[in-house]
Amino acid sequence: MPTEYNFTFGSFHSRVIIREKLPDSGEIALLPSCLAICDEHTEPILRRILGAAANSTVFTLVLPSGEQNKGWNSVEAILKAARRLGLGRDGLFLAAGGGVLCDLAGFAASVYMRGARLALVPTTLLAMADAALGGKTGFDFEGIKNLAGTFYPAEEIFVSLEALETLPEREWKSGMAEIIKAAILERPADGQAPGFSREPGESLRALAEAGGKVPAAGPWLSDMLAMAVTVKGAVVQADPRETGSERALLNLGHTFGHALEAAAGLGVVSHGEAVAWGIARACRMGRALGITPRKRAAAIMDVLSAWGYHTAVPYPAPVDPGIFKNAILSDKKKKNGGIRFVVPNADRAELVEHNGDTETYLEKLFTDLER
Amino acid sequence: MPTEYNFTFGSFHSRVIIREKLPDSGEIALLPSCLAICDEHTEPILRRILGAAANSTVFTLVLPSGEQNKGWNSVEAILKAARRLGLGRDGLFLAAGGGVLCDLAGFAASVYMRGARLALVPTTLLAMADAALGGKTGFDFEGIKNLAGTFYPAEEIFVSLEALETLPEREWKSGMAEIIKAAILERPADGQAPGFSREPGESLRALAEAGGKVPAAGPWLSDMLAMAVTVKGAVVQADPRETGSERALLNLGHTFGHALEAAAGLGVVSHGEAVAWGIARACRMGRALGITPRKRAAAIMDVLSAWGYHTAVPYPAPVDPGIFKNAILSDKKKKNGGIRFVVPNADRAELVEHNGDTETYLEKLFTDLER
Repeated sequence: MPTEYNFTFGSFHSRVIIREKLPDSGEIALLPSCLAICDEHTEPILRRILGAAANSTVFTLVLPSGEQNKGWNSVEAILKAARRLGLGRDGLFLAAGGGVLCDLAGFAASVYMRGARLALVPTTLLAMADAALGGKTGFDFEGIKNLAGTFYPAEEIFVSLEALETLPEREWKSGMAEIIKAAILERPADGQAPGFSREPGESLRALAEAGGKVPAAGPWLSDMLAMAVTVKGAVVQADPRETGSERALLNLGHTFGHALEAAAGLGVVSHGEAVAWGIARACRMGRALGITPRKRAAAIMDVLSAWGYHTAVPYPAPVDPGIFKNAILSDKKKKNGGIRFVVPNADRAELVEHNGDTETYLEKLFTDLER
Repeated sequence: MPTEYNFTFGSFHSRVIIREKLPDSGEIALLPSCLAICDEHTEPILRRILGAAANSTVFTLVLPSGEQNKGWNSVEAILKAARRLGLGRDGLFLAAGGGVLCDLAGFAASVYMRGARLALVPTTLLAMADAALGGKTGFDFEGIKNLAGTFYPAEEIFVSLEALETLPEREWKSGMAEIIKAAILERPADGQAPGFSREPGESLRALAEAGGKVPAAGPWLSDMLAMAVTVKGAVVQADPRETGSERALLNLGHTFGHALEAAAGLGVVSHGEAVAWGIARACRMGRALGITPRKRAAAIMDVLSAWGYHTAVPYPAPVDPGIFKNAILSDKKKKNGGIRFVVPNADRAELVEHNGDTETYLEKLFTDLER
């Protein structure tokens, strides 16, 4: 049974449909015209969606995949294709792909004639659980991830498990970290969504019990995706543009994670592995600050270990301590010049302004990392 | 006496200050860091604003002026400068310039870290009366004006008459057309703004009486700017993203005007001259459709003539009829595949969907233009 979730992000509305099958073109408004965007890995998925509709009213653009292609060149290619197709501002940008492709297509749609229509078919676990929902678009600039971007939620997001059939192992691991993050942020109210009935905290236990393997039978995975979508949707609804402090909670694990990604060199550590390692750091900082209870930290670390994530400070890949330190201290998410950290608390997570105690923890972390 | 107008555009707030003097840096939040943007013509104005504040916390970027430089290259230069300055998302983009510069700086600010702070000092009559207010940003792409853009209203807009001291004659003419357009769209409610007390319709009469010359004494010009700002602000408040039909009224004269600009070749006819000619066409179409009363059309045509605008169909510059026709029929503002025209009515203006009658008028216009 497909389940549907509707969110209001400021003046935008997003509908998420979680189900087994890919949508067919009849379910997606393709007229008067549609630019379909994919990369070389997701082209077969897009072809399956478009089917017989891949005729003259639909133009398919295949972009090169990977973070190294997440630059202005790709945005330009999308805008040029839209222009050649003669797309109006009521035309549809339909993208099938992972986080990189969803971010690029979302950005291009947001600026084309100051905003065209946008539908996403995320094809990785990471994009389904996190990247495709919530309106953040962007591309990399001057070596900085997503330095340029917009807030532009997709109208429709089709989370189809069928799209995961050919997903590589590494991509599973990258997506599961965001699901674990969502489980840490789960609140009682998030369980109220239609088709989703877990008790708060149950998701984290379910992740621990699964012990690093997605159960073959039952709706386990769609339940977990529903949980991640519900958690993220609720947070973004409360604070769409991260002007308050609610949306910043989604950065749990990301300040440390982004710094690790940068310090290991772009593409060496996957986003999910970096976020998982970052969540472990957030637990340690939370312990040092007396915010994260011992049992809670242990439960989170257990789940991370169960799913095969590296949680100890010295990372098995070479890490440049200078870049790491600099990345932490110049974090894009800083507010009014100050850095904020997200650390797990007894039942969720909370924001901590950079202070003497966080400084002490960071100094220890920098020292340990150099060993 | 400076007057201040506050508008709410969706989730954004804009404050417009109309006054004699340029702001000084103390009035603009320059900390923790500010990227100041200008072109070679407006650099002296920016220097006057920054004064002693032009120190290490402020970096000034001078862009090449003109529509031909309104491309991605200029956006990229702004983003690179912001990055080198280490601007955070709470950093300020401060731009002093005409419509092109305001659009470019606004776009760059809107995408830098998904949205930095933005303050504008419009330095042309056109930018003061129209371009700087209302949130439309953009740059030209593939030869199409503002094909890429965002909706991102500036927090503060300083309309300082002092900035007009060195404005060339051609630029005055370009801006006055938008003021005439605003006067046509003026409603009773628009007179309620603080510091502005004209009767509806009085602005159009005042423009006719001035007879093509800005009166040297008295607050005539600041009154007219207050009228234009009030009219535009009210329209944009009612329909920030042009999802309804209110904001589309601001396109009065622009469908025909943009087509003329394109058909004469970029830069040959100024935006204001093209808009004035377009308003004349809108009057003629409105007459043909029985929407614009004869007296109203005559009053508008009189004002256009008084200010020296060319209003007859054959334009004194070479115009490519094929480009003109194509531009009208592929107008960016089209909705659901259809084109809409704005024509003056008895007391304001209204939208007309393209139909048999507009088609008949267009065919006559295309024929007359080829003569």
